[in-house]
Amino acid sequence: SGDDPHGVGRFMQLCVDRHYVSPGHTNTELFQRGVSCVYGPLGVELRRNLLEQWWRSVTRSSAQVFGINTLCRSRDTATGGRGQLGIVESGCLKHLIEKHELSKEQLIQELEKLIQRSTSLRTDFLQGALEQFVPSLDLVNRKLPFGLAEFGPCFRPSDGSDGPAEVTQTSLAWFCSPRTSSQWLDHWAQQRLKWWRKFALSPSDFSSIDVPAEELEEATSRGVRIVYSFPWGREPLETLWSRGHTELLQTHKGVHSKLQCRDGRKSVPHVVSVTGNMDRGVMAFLCNSLQQLKKEDGMQKLLRRKVLKLHPVLAPVKVALDIGRGANMELRQVRSTSIFCVAWRISETVPTSMEQLNAKYDEMGVLFAVVVSENTLESGLLQVRSRDTTIRETKHISEIKNFLSRYISAADNL
Amino acid sequence: SGDDPHGVGRFMQLCVDRHYVSPGHTNTELFQRGVSCVYGPLGVELRRNLLEQWWRSVTRSSAQVFGINTLCRSRDTATGGRGQLGIVESGCLKHLIEKHELSKEQLIQELEKLIQRSTSLRTDFLQGALEQFVPSLDLVNRKLPFGLAEFGPCFRPSDGSDGPAEVTQTSLAWFCSPRTSSQWLDHWAQQRLKWWRKFALSPSDFSSIDVPAEELEEATSRGVRIVYSFPWGREPLETLWSRGHTELLQTHKGVHSKLQCRDGRKSVPHVVSVTGNMDRGVMAFLCNSLQQLKKEDGMQKLLRRKVLKLHPVLAPVKVALDIGRGANMELRQVRSTSIFCVAWRISETVPTSMEQLNAKYDEMGVLFAVVVSENTLESGLLQVRSRDTTIRETKHISEIKNFLSRYISAADNL
Repeated sequence: SGDDPHGVGRFMQLCVDRHYVSPGHTNTELFQRGVSCVYGPLGVELRRNLLEQWWRSVTRSSAQVFGINTLCRSRDTATGGRGQLGIVESGCLKHLIEKHELSKEQLIQELEKLIQRSTSLRTDFLQGALEQFVPSLDLVNRKLPFGLAEFGPCFRPSDGSDGPAEVTQTSLAWFCSPRTSSQWLDHWAQQRLKWWRKFALSPSDFSSIDVPAEELEEATSRGVRIVYSFPWGREPLETLWSRGHTELLQTHKGVHSKLQCRDGRKSVPHVVSVTGNMDRGVMAFLCNSLQQLKKEDGMQKLLRRKVLKLHPVLAPVKVALDIGRGANMELRQVRSTSIFCVAWRISETVPTSMEQLNAKYDEMGVLFAVVVSENTLESGLLQVRSRDTTIRETKHISEIKNFLSRYISAADNL
Repeated sequence: SGDDPHGVGRFMQLCVDRHYVSPGHTNTELFQRGVSCVYGPLGVELRRNLLEQWWRSVTRSSAQVFGINTLCRSRDTATGGRGQLGIVESGCLKHLIEKHELSKEQLIQELEKLIQRSTSLRTDFLQGALEQFVPSLDLVNRKLPFGLAEFGPCFRPSDGSDGPAEVTQTSLAWFCSPRTSSQWLDHWAQQRLKWWRKFALSPSDFSSIDVPAEELEEATSRGVRIVYSFPWGREPLETLWSRGHTELLQTHKGVHSKLQCRDGRKSVPHVVSVTGNMDRGVMAFLCNSLQQLKKEDGMQKLLRRKVLKLHPVLAPVKVALDIGRGANMELRQVRSTSIFCVAWRISETVPTSMEQLNAKYDEMGVLFAVVVSENTLESGLLQVRSRDTTIRETKHISEIKNFLSRYISAADNL
């Protein structure tokens, strides 16, 4: 482990082997940098589950939050380029180069025109939320506070030769009265930390820290970061800023009357922004839920057992279904019946020992493995093995769906 | 209606007024073109619901389908640019122009380098699926058929001065044995048409047509389009192609051994691609579900009543909650109790007549309007009004959640 002091290499390999991250060195490097990589099918589902939980937590809470969408690319100039990354189609550039009759000066003029007409890729969702503030006022009857939420890919300017990077961001822009903005920042920081910890195996790895005064960004007066303690150090998952109303006014050309809201007295609201990086969130939960156990229960052998103890609502595969080698055609029909509509993935695997198969499922974080044997069709009985207890139970086919639903929703309501 | 022969203008205005589409001429124009626009909060939720239903229908069917993700931008050259749109950061271009010492030839050389190093925005998901085919083989034990699914924004080269457009696409790449590919194309075309019709108020507006031989694309041997009959003509919502294995081989540099799968005999699979445009899908369902009724039931007045009869699972607002003007603080607490976790949006509206309010909700497609009156806290009774029947019923607060859940899941299982 001299080459791999924090076990990072082994961790990455596990993520690749168990279909969380697609193979390839460039790809795992992106993943480790906390930007979007090509995920494997399990990673795709994990990120989906994480985003779904985030969306629920902000839009279905008692707070008034609406979903919005901004386009990936826009032509907006209201911000003077803040939050945006200018791009030019290389086809247009090629076309210019081929015009041999142009002098150097003419070429430069044409290039300048191209830059002026260039469109932008969004680098965050804040600008979109500031623009959508005015059309949303009708929905809330000009009453504060309320929020606008969005998630999806955002872009970062290239830092080297590799072109712009992509990050799966979440964003909540919270509009509130000036005198309450500081309390709201604290409220959301607390809510967000609670959310991250809810799904953690070891919650203390997630913490919140105040942004030091010297790191405050333009237009912000206070900041809080939710960070995760990775084996190689702390990295931010989510950042909250108290931003005042400067940017809101700037976006709407300083027209106070358009922006005024009611909350006791009339005022132009202040903005609290909450921005998360869900690619790094995926990595944090994978890191956090990997347990290395020294002893296989009930066995005499000393084994290293790795279990990815992802929270039940996050686990991409709730149930893996193994169909015995016999009676193939009839058993296949079991698969498509409604009992397995909770089995989000059904994996048919290489016939191998049950022990090896379960070890693989544990590393994938599969909650339950169900074995359909040759006599299941007659007896209706299935063997159900739990990831967390390693205990095998026999259950009737009619109980399974309810059992799983109850198990997952119990974990959700903890 | 001479200026607006198909009522398109009025329809667009309704979409804007009722928060499906964000205001602005450029924006409604994007919407009408069937590309991504800035949606209003209700439009965001409608698109989310539609995408969620699509995802379920492909990944939780009895067919073996895994979710994948490709990056918005990539540097891949395996395809020679197929499915990709080259871009250059305008910052880099600016930097070059400022180097005054460059001769024209040197400038052109530098520009050529920039083009060579340019990254690309994806124009569809097919290339990503072809690349993920090999790492996915392990999950299915090299057994055919199986599919790889993805959805999200894709880009289109600019057709004018407006820069690249954006479309919310869905993609299923289905890998099957060569001898079954034509049957699978028919199977998926049938499944997809069934899916669109499931949510329609008038299903016959959705239909499928074979792509004429002269419109076949390179590498495709057959095609089917799912189209919607808009008032101004038919437009495609989803396109299915039988594509053979040419592109799959090309992506993996012709290495047959890496690609061979089992389905009876060994073979390099054929690909059936299913690509949908969910921005146009949103427009189709909005068009399809708008009903204009001439008479308000139970009234003597002749009124034009507009109702957006969106399918219950698609409707963005299941319940609108109106809180009477009295007893404000206590009633507010009702709002945050669990009975309303099914109320995806809670709108507090300008006090106005009940009739006007219900007319507004009908145009928004709100399934049920619940009125919390001053004596609700004592009696526990609420008034529930249905969009589809316009009937008002009094229900106890404890029944509401179950009533709504049952109503929605009944509609889902039709």
